[in-house]
Amino acid sequence: MIEVYSWPTPNGHKVHIMLEECGLPYRVIPVDIGSGAQFEPGFLTISPNNKIPAIVDPEGPDGKPISLFESGAILLYLAGKTGRLLPAGTAAKYEVLQWLMFQMGSIGPMLGQAHHFRIYAPQKIDYAIERYSKEAGRLYGVMNKRLAASTYIAGKDYSIADIAIFPWLRSWKNQGVEMGDYPHLKGWFDEIARRPAVQRGVEVLAGARKPLIDEKAREVLFGDTQYKRH
Amino acid sequence: MIEVYSWPTPNGHKVHIMLEECGLPYRVIPVDIGSGAQFEPGFLTISPNNKIPAIVDPEGPDGKPISLFESGAILLYLAGKTGRLLPAGTAAKYEVLQWLMFQMGSIGPMLGQAHHFRIYAPQKIDYAIERYSKEAGRLYGVMNKRLAASTYIAGKDYSIADIAIFPWLRSWKNQGVEMGDYPHLKGWFDEIARRPAVQRGVEVLAGARKPLIDEKAREVLFGDTQYKRH
Ligand SMILES: N[C@@H](CCC(=O)N[C@@H](CS)C(=O)NCC(=O)O)C(=O)O
Ligand SMILES: N[C@@H](CCC(=O)N[C@@H](CS)C(=O)NCC(=O)O)C(=O)O
Repeated sequence: MIEVYSWPTPNGHKVHIMLEECGLPYRVIPVDIGSGAQFEPGFLTISPNNKIPAIVDPEGPDGKPISLFESGAILLYLAGKTGRLLPAGTAAKYEVLQWLMFQMGSIGPMLGQAHHFRIYAPQKIDYAIERYSKEAGRLYGVMNKRLAASTYIAGKDYSIADIAIFPWLRSWKNQGVEMGDYPHLKGWFDEIARRPAVQRGVEVLAGARKPLIDEKAREVLFGDTQYKRH
Repeated sequence: MIEVYSWPTPNGHKVHIMLEECGLPYRVIPVDIGSGAQFEPGFLTISPNNKIPAIVDPEGPDGKPISLFESGAILLYLAGKTGRLLPAGTAAKYEVLQWLMFQMGSIGPMLGQAHHFRIYAPQKIDYAIERYSKEAGRLYGVMNKRLAASTYIAGKDYSIADIAIFPWLRSWKNQGVEMGDYPHLKGWFDEIARRPAVQRGVEVLAGARKPLIDEKAREVLFGDTQYKRH
């Protein structure tokens, strides 16, 4: 059974949703990133960048176990293992890959910075709040324009690119944007939110995380802990 | 012949290096991102997120043209087209994919933020400078540890994951780190810098870019232009 090292955050949710969509059996191992569990030596062996999600599949390629970190790589691996949610045709496959990379390179990191400066940072820094809120609005605009012309983000079929983006937009209220300003994106979002596998995926580990970040978690995630534990 | 829409920045260099490594003929179309060329409607059709690099391959899958944005997707496409720099074996392939995603999700965006707050932002904001300089140091540490145990970032062979990371480390001086503090990373960096294809790749469009960012470019890249041109 696939072991999923995870926590109920957008990058964790991607993997939970994918596993639910594919109907693969899995076991979740919580990694409480607010208390520093991502710096445990055993976890760093699997995930050297001290981040969730990571997986261990005892039945990997050639029957040998495989461990993987980075949600984008995990989605590709699970798509390859099951033949699901990544088209086989070359052109359609690269269409998905480019939007998956767009999620990995822009949606995740930039909306993450919006969360940081709007919610978590100990000081309110106007320049940074404005920078990342505007960037969030720009990115929502790019997706809205795309979804005006395409049913799903990477074409006519639901794919791992949709799964990668969706969990990040659940907290649009923390990103300085108004979902209602992006009607095509909102339509897509609402449809995906109704999928039973998605609803099960976002419930995984729900409740494990404290609703608000505390001082300990702030220090672990943004203070010196980040830079001294390796 | 492959058309490369590009500019002499780290994400552009990745694609130039890959094309040189593979010996593929290509034609470069400069997109001056400092003067706003990334917002031209024709370019947005190819690259809807208004960023370089993008490519058009008139001889794409099934003999049909294909256009692609996102450097990570372009590297995968060129690797698929040539059978180069991405291992065929499943386990080795996912090893490369996870480090490629690490570049896309952390190295690019976070070192990019370090550049922004250390060099380009109109105000010096200590909190942000410290946040991203420390993150740069953490990431250099992760790579140094990996390269103490592995010849290349994703295993025993040079791959698209090395090509993706290398151009970002050329400007380590702008990231608040000291390359000499990371001897395994430095050894890897120096070796890659000596590759003839890499030397040719980083020369593509050299000289097109002004050495320092001017007011026009600052407005285009970080001011309201970014959010009003779509
Ligand atoms: N690019 C990575 C990002 C993963 C990531 O940022 N994980 C966060 C939670 S959403 C984390 O584990 N943070 C803990 C830390 O950085 O110490 C991916 O997509 O998997
Ligand atoms: N995730 C993208 C990032 C590309 C990117 O950030 N490109 C920059 C230059 S290095 C750009 O075109 N910026 C212009 C803009 O954002 O307006 C990739 O890897 O291709």
